Amino acid sequence: MRPTPLLRTLKPSGTASAALRERVRRPAFLERLARAEDLAPLFKNDDYIGWSGFTGVGYPKSVPTAIADDIESNNLQASPDTKKKFNLFVGASVGPEVEDRWARLDMIARRYPHQVGKDISKGINAGRINFADKHLSMFPQDLTYGYYNLRKTHSDSRKPLDWAIVEATAITEDGYIVPGASVGATPEIVQSAEKIIIEVNTRIPNLEGLHDINHSFIPPNRQPYIITHPQDRIGLPAIPIDPDRVVALIESTKPDNTGTNAPENDDSRAIARHLIQFLSEEVQSGRLPKSLLPLQSGIGNVANSIIGGLAEGPFEQVQVWTEVLQDTFLRFFDSGKLAFATATSIRFSPEGFDQFYQNWATYKDRLLLRSQQVANSPEIIRRLGIIAMNTPLEVDIYGHANSTCALGSRMLNGIGGSADFLRNAKLSIMHTPSSRPTKTDPTGISCIVPFASHVDQTEHDLDIIVTEQGLADLRGLAPRERAPLIIEKCAHPDYKDMLHEVLFFFR
Amino acid sequence: MRPTPLLRTLKPSGTASAALRERVRRPAFLERLARAEDLAPLFKNDDYIGWSGFTGVGYPKSVPTAIADDIESNNLQASPDTKKKFNLFVGASVGPEVEDRWARLDMIARRYPHQVGKDISKGINAGRINFADKHLSMFPQDLTYGYYNLRKTHSDSRKPLDWAIVEATAITEDGYIVPGASVGATPEIVQSAEKIIIEVNTRIPNLEGLHDINHSFIPPNRQPYIITHPQDRIGLPAIPIDPDRVVALIESTKPDNTGTNAPENDDSRAIARHLIQFLSEEVQSGRLPKSLLPLQSGIGNVANSIIGGLAEGPFEQVQVWTEVLQDTFLRFFDSGKLAFATATSIRFSPEGFDQFYQNWATYKDRLLLRSQQVANSPEIIRRLGIIAMNTPLEVDIYGHANSTCALGSRMLNGIGGSADFLRNAKLSIMHTPSSRPTKTDPTGISCIVPFASHVDQTEHDLDIIVTEQGLADLRGLAPRERAPLIIEKCAHPDYKDMLHEVLFFFR
Repeated sequence: MRPTPLLRTLKPSGTASAALRERVRRPAFLERLARAEDLAPLFKNDDYIGWSGFTGVGYPKSVPTAIADDIESNNLQASPDTKKKFNLFVGASVGPEVEDRWARLDMIARRYPHQVGKDISKGINAGRINFADKHLSMFPQDLTYGYYNLRKTHSDSRKPLDWAIVEATAITEDGYIVPGASVGATPEIVQSAEKIIIEVNTRIPNLEGLHDINHSFIPPNRQPYIITHPQDRIGLPAIPIDPDRVVALIESTKPDNTGTNAPENDDSRAIARHLIQFLSEEVQSGRLPKSLLPLQSGIGNVANSIIGGLAEGPFEQVQVWTEVLQDTFLRFFDSGKLAFATATSIRFSPEGFDQFYQNWATYKDRLLLRSQQVANSPEIIRRLGIIAMNTPLEVDIYGHANSTCALGSRMLNGIGGSADFLRNAKLSIMHTPSSRPTKTDPTGISCIVPFASHVDQTEHDLDIIVTEQGLADLRGLAPRERAPLIIEKCAHPDYKDMLHEVLFFFR
Repeated sequence: MRPTPLLRTLKPSGTASAALRERVRRPAFLERLARAEDLAPLFKNDDYIGWSGFTGVGYPKSVPTAIADDIESNNLQASPDTKKKFNLFVGASVGPEVEDRWARLDMIARRYPHQVGKDISKGINAGRINFADKHLSMFPQDLTYGYYNLRKTHSDSRKPLDWAIVEATAITEDGYIVPGASVGATPEIVQSAEKIIIEVNTRIPNLEGLHDINHSFIPPNRQPYIITHPQDRIGLPAIPIDPDRVVALIESTKPDNTGTNAPENDDSRAIARHLIQFLSEEVQSGRLPKSLLPLQSGIGNVANSIIGGLAEGPFEQVQVWTEVLQDTFLRFFDSGKLAFATATSIRFSPEGFDQFYQNWATYKDRLLLRSQQVANSPEIIRRLGIIAMNTPLEVDIYGHANSTCALGSRMLNGIGGSADFLRNAKLSIMHTPSSRPTKTDPTGISCIVPFASHVDQTEHDLDIIVTEQGLADLRGLAPRERAPLIIEKCAHPDYKDMLHEVLFFFR
């Protein structure tokens, strides 16, 4: 293995810890051990940087923090001559202590394809950060297609990214990366980057065996995903990598900064009851098998209530094909009713992760993490006949849903994988409380509206809308039939008359 | 084969013609030969009826006409006691002489999932016809899932449809149906129907060998489509059928009523030039292979100009994976530059069909028709990396497109397969003239608008927008970057200032 020029510019970082030596089975990588603070100044203004990470799990913590420290302590952003803004590409969201801090320090020029965080959305809405959300299944392929570096001019590199900074829980003999609790877009980010920095996290257990990493082909050479059940494996247990492009290795001991899951409440439990009742009727009518079809469930308290409800529900041997797993999935596993779950990320709370790691032997054969290109693949979602359940900001009486922008233009979170699933699922379900509180009014905002102010899910995509008030089955209905049904079944009583009046006006 | 009860109620229809005996290789079917006028009275009010047909090709002509004749001549619609309205399911549009006539006679209660015709859209907009458009890849599966017969109460049948009326150009020894120049949803319609009537069209040549019909599985038993090139075959040459459900056979000699293709004009040729220039640059930059990737092209004069332009263009050995082929594809074949084309329908003009049938030997090995569930499959579109090109009604400056409803609610055509392709293509292109004429103003309507009045393609789905004015490459751009670019490159000069003012106002 030839040493890279970059390596020679770095100070020696001392000896590798015993923990690190145990994790890194390719000894040559240990010669590239570096300190995050020494790497930080190497990042130049306008660099294109990819990170591992998805839903705040599995992201690099040390180097991004060191870069922010460097910028802050040297007051670089104060002058146009020293100011650094980066183009940042991560499969989905990462911990706020890095992403939001970068946004606060005005270090982000572009951010694709997803974001969660107060400061980053503030930067986007103020026009300081260029952001476009892309369906999470498409982002990795668009990156490898070269669609994100069309206007990259400062670098001679033909690669889309100048840097990849990725977290690993182990390195194999081949130098392949064993990720942490998410895969996301890491395979394609590593494949697309000129220089790779690996943060080996020795605090998190070695999760080898949890992942299924397939090669990401580009047309015209793309192959079918030969997956017909959630447990099917089609790839390797680790992410292949060109070892020559690994310029530095860091040991990291920082945990994923996940926080607690959103707590259930009466509304979320009512929604879950309506949904489980509906699914039971679908089974009785023969439209669903007794064990249902693989479930996709989003993030949030309604998702928690649904999965919690299923743990006590009438369905046995249930399977899950989803984007991200929350704490309630542990309860679902423990109930004996969940046979197998696959996702691209495990976003447990710190307590959830403790339980998971302590009972690793119990869970590991019933769980698989894949890349987001596979987890959110329309091909597989449609083939398996997924039951998809997601929360919008608002849904209108004709069946359009807004997943991204309050009042049409104020960006909250990105669209994430919701449209990957809702367009292709066998049952496309949106669940939301019928209203949300404002500062002065407990039902100040209706989530059922006359017209969605931004359309992320079209009226051609949704089958079922459910609130704590009830469930509207839109299958086979024309838009003019949907409107009175959605108002009647789903709207909050405070808004029913108003919505009926709108409908009358447009009749 | 046991005779069905229905058959015994029919009068004998005389002897089969020589032409019919040659086409029908299962002799028992000839015993069920009937006359369309004898079948017509069997159709009851509120019956669920499926037809073959797609883009006005391959639809049944005799029985639907006889049903309309029966209703008209007996004045059945005049009284509530005798009035008949049917629920009509066809893969896409069919000839106006039947579909529009049914609409004029108020014979359609519901129509899914697509329609083209003045009278049918008038009936929809007046609220006489319940219509919802569904992505054409999804309609057949939703039919087999039982999503369209959820509210069917008048019949004991567990099948979604009471009747299938399908056109064939031949019947095999097994009783399997060889379709005409479209496949569409016929496999699933036949599979979903209690009673099947076959119209064998002896005027159209026997098109055996042109079709690839795969079995349509339902989750959890669905399998991958093992297709990696447009020419790959995965099925049978004819549509499998339960012979016991064939209640009658009709000989038909009516042609497909296609009319001429939309003529090219200066604008459509300018759009084609911009597009071919763009594709050439993509090849030069290495983002597309020299033979491009398989093309999808919609219907209309812009599509004609593009395909015509490619016939004289710089690309060799081009492949096509699309929904429907128009006349210009014959020119593309004849130029020697089109290696292979596959679609679900061939919608040639009468002259185009003459040329096609006369040179059948030249074309037949370079052409394949599949079901719309396969032709429009997200799985295959994404795998092959299709270049998708479609026309919207209007597109807004942030990249949303309206494909269906003028002014947000006046339904024109359905969404068709546009979103199947645009969501999943490697390059998602919308092309439109920058303006359309009104009665008094040659540029009276701008096709580039501040906000789409109905969103069928979301801002997360489009890569390229092109008008006769120019081409806007939206890849990798945030919404606020897209707006000035779309205005500058694509808007008609008459509207540029107005659009810039809107943008300034919302800044």
